[in-house]
Amino acid sequence: MASCQVVDAEPKGNGYQRASSLWHWHNKDVTDITDVQSAWLTAEDLAQIRERLPIVYVDAIPVRVDDAGRVTKIGLLLRGRPDGSISRAVISGRVLYGERIRDALLRHIEKDLGAMALPQIPTNPAPFTVAEYFPDPEVSGFHDPRQHAVSLVYVVPVKGDCAPSQNSLDLVWLTPAEAISGNVRAEMTGGQDILVQLALAHAGALS
Amino acid sequence: MASCQVVDAEPKGNGYQRASSLWHWHNKDVTDITDVQSAWLTAEDLAQIRERLPIVYVDAIPVRVDDAGRVTKIGLLLRGRPDGSISRAVISGRVLYGERIRDALLRHIEKDLGAMALPQIPTNPAPFTVAEYFPDPEVSGFHDPRQHAVSLVYVVPVKGDCAPSQNSLDLVWLTPAEAISGNVRAEMTGGQDILVQLALAHAGALS
Amino acid sequence: MASCQVVDAEPKGNGYQRASSLWHWHNKDVTDITDVQSAWLTAEDLAQIRERLPIVYVDAIPVRVDDAGRVTKIGLLLRGRPDGSISRAVISGRVLYGERIRDALLRHIEKDLGAMALPQIPTNPAPFTVAEYFPDPEVSGFHDPRQHAVSLVYVVPVKGDCAPSQNSLDLVWLTPAEAISGNVRAEMTGGQDILVQLALAHAGALS
Amino acid sequence: MASCQVVDAEPKGNGYQRASSLWHWHNKDVTDITDVQSAWLTAEDLAQIRERLPIVYVDAIPVRVDDAGRVTKIGLLLRGRPDGSISRAVISGRVLYGERIRDALLRHIEKDLGAMALPQIPTNPAPFTVAEYFPDPEVSGFHDPRQHAVSLVYVVPVKGDCAPSQNSLDLVWLTPAEAISGNVRAEMTGGQDILVQLALAHAGALS
Repeated sequence: MASCQVVDAEPKGNGYQRASSLWHWHNKDVTDITDVQSAWLTAEDLAQIRERLPIVYVDAIPVRVDDAGRVTKIGLLLRGRPDGSISRAVISGRVLYGERIRDALLRHIEKDLGAMALPQIPTNPAPFTVAEYFPDPEVSGFHDPRQHAVSLVYVVPVKGDCAPSQNSLDLVWLTPAEAISGNVRAEMTGGQDILVQLALAHAGALS
Repeated sequence: MASCQVVDAEPKGNGYQRASSLWHWHNKDVTDITDVQSAWLTAEDLAQIRERLPIVYVDAIPVRVDDAGRVTKIGLLLRGRPDGSISRAVISGRVLYGERIRDALLRHIEKDLGAMALPQIPTNPAPFTVAEYFPDPEVSGFHDPRQHAVSLVYVVPVKGDCAPSQNSLDLVWLTPAEAISGNVRAEMTGGQDILVQLALAHAGALS
Repeated sequence: MASCQVVDAEPKGNGYQRASSLWHWHNKDVTDITDVQSAWLTAEDLAQIRERLPIVYVDAIPVRVDDAGRVTKIGLLLRGRPDGSISRAVISGRVLYGERIRDALLRHIEKDLGAMALPQIPTNPAPFTVAEYFPDPEVSGFHDPRQHAVSLVYVVPVKGDCAPSQNSLDLVWLTPAEAISGNVRAEMTGGQDILVQLALAHAGALS
Repeated sequence: MASCQVVDAEPKGNGYQRASSLWHWHNKDVTDITDVQSAWLTAEDLAQIRERLPIVYVDAIPVRVDDAGRVTKIGLLLRGRPDGSISRAVISGRVLYGERIRDALLRHIEKDLGAMALPQIPTNPAPFTVAEYFPDPEVSGFHDPRQHAVSLVYVVPVKGDCAPSQNSLDLVWLTPAEAISGNVRAEMTGGQDILVQLALAHAGALS
């Protein structure tokens, strides 16, 4: 198999299986525009590039809000992480070649929360912060053993029904106070707890 | 009549009539929490304060967005303005004593667009810009002959049905390109055209 | 004494003395443009207005930064606070009638850190957050027993020599980690510790 | 020549010459930490990756400000652009593997304005907008025929002496009004004129 399309930012299992399943998947009728417009890239290619160039990511912190926009709950996934742990994390994924930031954000939210989540993507294209993930956990506090990723981070209210995808083991909705409590922070790795704090600070919900 | 409550930022008609109607209104059962928590202030008092202290305002630019948060339309009211003109303007109003910014924003949007507008108040309490209105139009480009107002400005997506209130003569939804065209700009006074440009710039919809 | 000008947001001592000293001060030649352009307001007038309308404030968190803009230190004043305590606080003050936000920010920083502080006022007029102070400490977590103040909050790098003014007892420069440590937080009241956290989150310096 | 290090985002002349000079340069003692930490990448490799993945960039709009942070002038380079034109442009360049956003910003500003420019990199790591450059000029209005680049955009006050580097033919300082005038806009391609407008909007200097 010469070439395949890697559409997910967090491959699970070994690279061959993933590449293989994607290859088959690709040979089905493809209707998702964001996949069609992405360039061909083998898992091997991506692995090599990841050692040489920063990769563009988006992170989304899903929240429930009241009528006046106050954050009442924050959503955290339980999932396998790049560092090998199973821990609490926000939504995160790669931006594909040719894909707009907004569309990547929408795609990853739907992938992780399902098609009925009704996310309200912010009108402002600027992220509220930038999380710079490095293989060395000391550089910035944001750690990704696979790569240097520059992630644009957004707080995204979701209004609909959320169903964690098969990539996630669980989705919990916590109050702001719960989300920054010691025992929840202990379930997060690689700087995800800091990201949650930054999101709550941005939303004026840090106490 | 000794004292009345001024709840609207843009009194229409002469002060006595307004004060009078508000006074009667006040003597009804009052259920709106934002009105109850506001302090008593005669129209005369407010006029005097306006010559001495900056007044806190919120401005909201209502927009229609697509699923990915792109601005497709911007809403402009046609209304009597403080400068005596009837012109295109965004939503604007005073923050009451004891009232949270978010609640003031929601209240003024509902007042101008109706109770079914379903506004999505941003999670971030920080405005995207601050419009400083002065009696002297030369100071900042934002002009209000009545007062020095410091207005926190927000872009607010609305998802529901919008019906202009009796305070407004009309509500139009324009594309970003239409909203900054020469003939629409010519219908705006006091810096409202600049505010529309700033909002579109913030939303990445300026071209 | 009929009328005097209140130029400081945090009067110390009893109102009469302050009013009196200001009155004398006023009768000197006044060269400061921001004072000249402010309207006349007796301490009594201001006290009455404070019970009826939100007051416009600016808060500034002074920081030291390295060449790449990273926050290395955060400055905290030790001063008498509106709640009667002597505690750590950021720079804070009222915006005068006719005064631009930028000029109010510059004026209060110079007042508290001296004329040689060389503050770098941000180019963006939007605050990074809005602190809503209420007489009731439960409403927002930001507490001011005197008034409802809507404060526009900015992080301001200072490059020069800082000398705390006579209004302050002390000025300390702390690392981000020190500034959010338990014993420093214990020296802050009225939500000042939250403000410090929000500022560090905004600067990407929360850990 | 097997491998070389591409340190500049906008190669001039043909790829071979550049690769060659960089190779020689590399064999000198390298003291610049940002170059040392970047990974090896041939011009060919980079060209291939550019057809498959979005590349991380930073754009900086250099400005002169007054004491209160008001933008008085905006700096525009005259340079060869990726589209083959010689036109007005802001500072722009690639983020290297292992490099922090702040350091990339500082490096590109020094490269284009010289070592004495004294830039004030913002404390907030979040860009004020994101410019998404595509090979197809219709997608976003930001055009780069070489690649899909996701550029984090910052307004950066510079206090020192600016000397355009050899990469640039000229550097002009324009007032905000001049910078958005028709004849200056006509000297910009690929959406650079929009970027200037967005920067001025962000700085509250659009009129």
